[in-house]
Amino acid sequence: MTHRPAILIMQRHLAPLTSFLEATYTVYRFWEGPPVEARDDIRAMIVAGEYPLDKHLIESLPNLQLLACFTSGYDGIDIDWCRARGLPVTHAPGVNHEDVADHAVGLILAARRQIVAGDRQLRTGGWVADTRTITPSLKGQRVGIVGLGLIGQAVARRLVSLRMPIQWWGPRDKPADWPRASSLLELARDSDVLVVACKADDSNRGLISREIIDALGPDGLLVNVARGQLVDETAMIEALHTGRLGQAALDVFEQEPTDAARWANVPNTVLTPHTAGATTEGVQGMLMLLLQNLQASFAEEPLKSPVPD
Amino acid sequence: MTHRPAILIMQRHLAPLTSFLEATYTVYRFWEGPPVEARDDIRAMIVAGEYPLDKHLIESLPNLQLLACFTSGYDGIDIDWCRARGLPVTHAPGVNHEDVADHAVGLILAARRQIVAGDRQLRTGGWVADTRTITPSLKGQRVGIVGLGLIGQAVARRLVSLRMPIQWWGPRDKPADWPRASSLLELARDSDVLVVACKADDSNRGLISREIIDALGPDGLLVNVARGQLVDETAMIEALHTGRLGQAALDVFEQEPTDAARWANVPNTVLTPHTAGATTEGVQGMLMLLLQNLQASFAEEPLKSPVPD
Repeated sequence: MTHRPAILIMQRHLAPLTSFLEATYTVYRFWEGPPVEARDDIRAMIVAGEYPLDKHLIESLPNLQLLACFTSGYDGIDIDWCRARGLPVTHAPGVNHEDVADHAVGLILAARRQIVAGDRQLRTGGWVADTRTITPSLKGQRVGIVGLGLIGQAVARRLVSLRMPIQWWGPRDKPADWPRASSLLELARDSDVLVVACKADDSNRGLISREIIDALGPDGLLVNVARGQLVDETAMIEALHTGRLGQAALDVFEQEPTDAARWANVPNTVLTPHTAGATTEGVQGMLMLLLQNLQASFAEEPLKSPVPD
Repeated sequence: MTHRPAILIMQRHLAPLTSFLEATYTVYRFWEGPPVEARDDIRAMIVAGEYPLDKHLIESLPNLQLLACFTSGYDGIDIDWCRARGLPVTHAPGVNHEDVADHAVGLILAARRQIVAGDRQLRTGGWVADTRTITPSLKGQRVGIVGLGLIGQAVARRLVSLRMPIQWWGPRDKPADWPRASSLLELARDSDVLVVACKADDSNRGLISREIIDALGPDGLLVNVARGQLVDETAMIEALHTGRLGQAALDVFEQEPTDAARWANVPNTVLTPHTAGATTEGVQGMLMLLLQNLQASFAEEPLKSPVPD
């Protein structure tokens, strides 16, 4: 082993981390070629939590002592498998949920008040003297929040100021400022806007199914700032095409980056490239936790933010 | 005079009012040809307040007894001239300021969190694996509100939930929950986001001058949900081109509809076709006040919502 601990960054979009790590660590970048010659040196692996874990690679790194997930979500990581190997996993909770909630509110406004569509209309010469677009007032539109965690609560607090009544649903009841629907289906039936804000794991893939989408209905707006896999995207696209679903505003997709061609003819959508949590403040908070977790691991101190049991 | 009072609608985009008025009144539409044969019959004129008043036409209508402005704003109407003629003017205050505030928040989020730009990027295939857009957190971005009337206050209430500190300026001090800057220039200097929300009249044309735009600066976002004439649009476009102003999010323009070609190469803009106040709830409220004012005028009762002295 070298004197400076070696670290392997897995995903290319995490490349900007290099400059913050190189002062202290020897940094390898997976996309520049598998670090065959350094496999005995690598002691920590840095990943984005939504990407599937390369278990084969991990098994080939004999001195790996930390799997550091840069993000808050870690749905791509098989936590039980890591635990069985004795490999600690850290993540970055609680640093960008307020920014994700801001983005969710922005998506609701952009879709309902036709801000994206209006911008497109104006720029293509579609605003003429005798047309006048009337958009729906947000006041009184009923919001259903799927998953009342940090993000869901932050979304709810904001929508109160927009005069929108709030309900939520999650598999476990808990004390909350807003009423819990008896089921996800009831929530979708009683909502004009359904905001997906829950954690994704193996148990809830496709949670927003065709049945839920139909319950939300032809005037409904589906917002997803959580994970693409939570929504049956094919069923959603079909429902948008046929008008069985009113609108969708999405920051996350089944496959990322999503293919532009997939959305070319899908009406009534607002689409952003997974930017809800990728903010100046969010990235700064994630970087801080990453550095603290790396330092703690190499100092054999308690980790700052391990994934919960 | 006919038995049913005759009413003249001036602007083409107000045509949908016809169906609500025809049950009670004989309705003329100015854009279908000047109502020469009906000029003795016409007793009320319905206008959108942002359009210049046709004084010559008014002088040709001997029995005109009401100028009913459908909108809240009445900046196109020479109130003193009407008063001198003894022509009462009504408008529709307090029915859509909350919706206008919602739209202003939507414009801030769309611009700062790159929702419009992100949607465009994704649809044109610009989202690829090794690019990741980082957008600025709204938290802590300082907001300056120009004009703390109903709209300005409603904007401020919403932005508190987005963790943005608020200041305001208006020509007259008044009790408020937020501090008043000593001048508009100071407000622009101390703001990351400047929201124009004041009433427009002859005294404040070009209020957001080149000097104010420069004070807002290269990281600043200018939002206008009031009236286009309040901003020196040519100076603003030049400042966006040269980077002296960071971003602009506009619902109103010097000329409406604005020419798409005027904006084709202007960077960092979000543009909507004057839809902030044109909402289901807003239009319903304006219609209700219009009908009440017409009824009161013909019954010789006190008008429901005359323009204030």
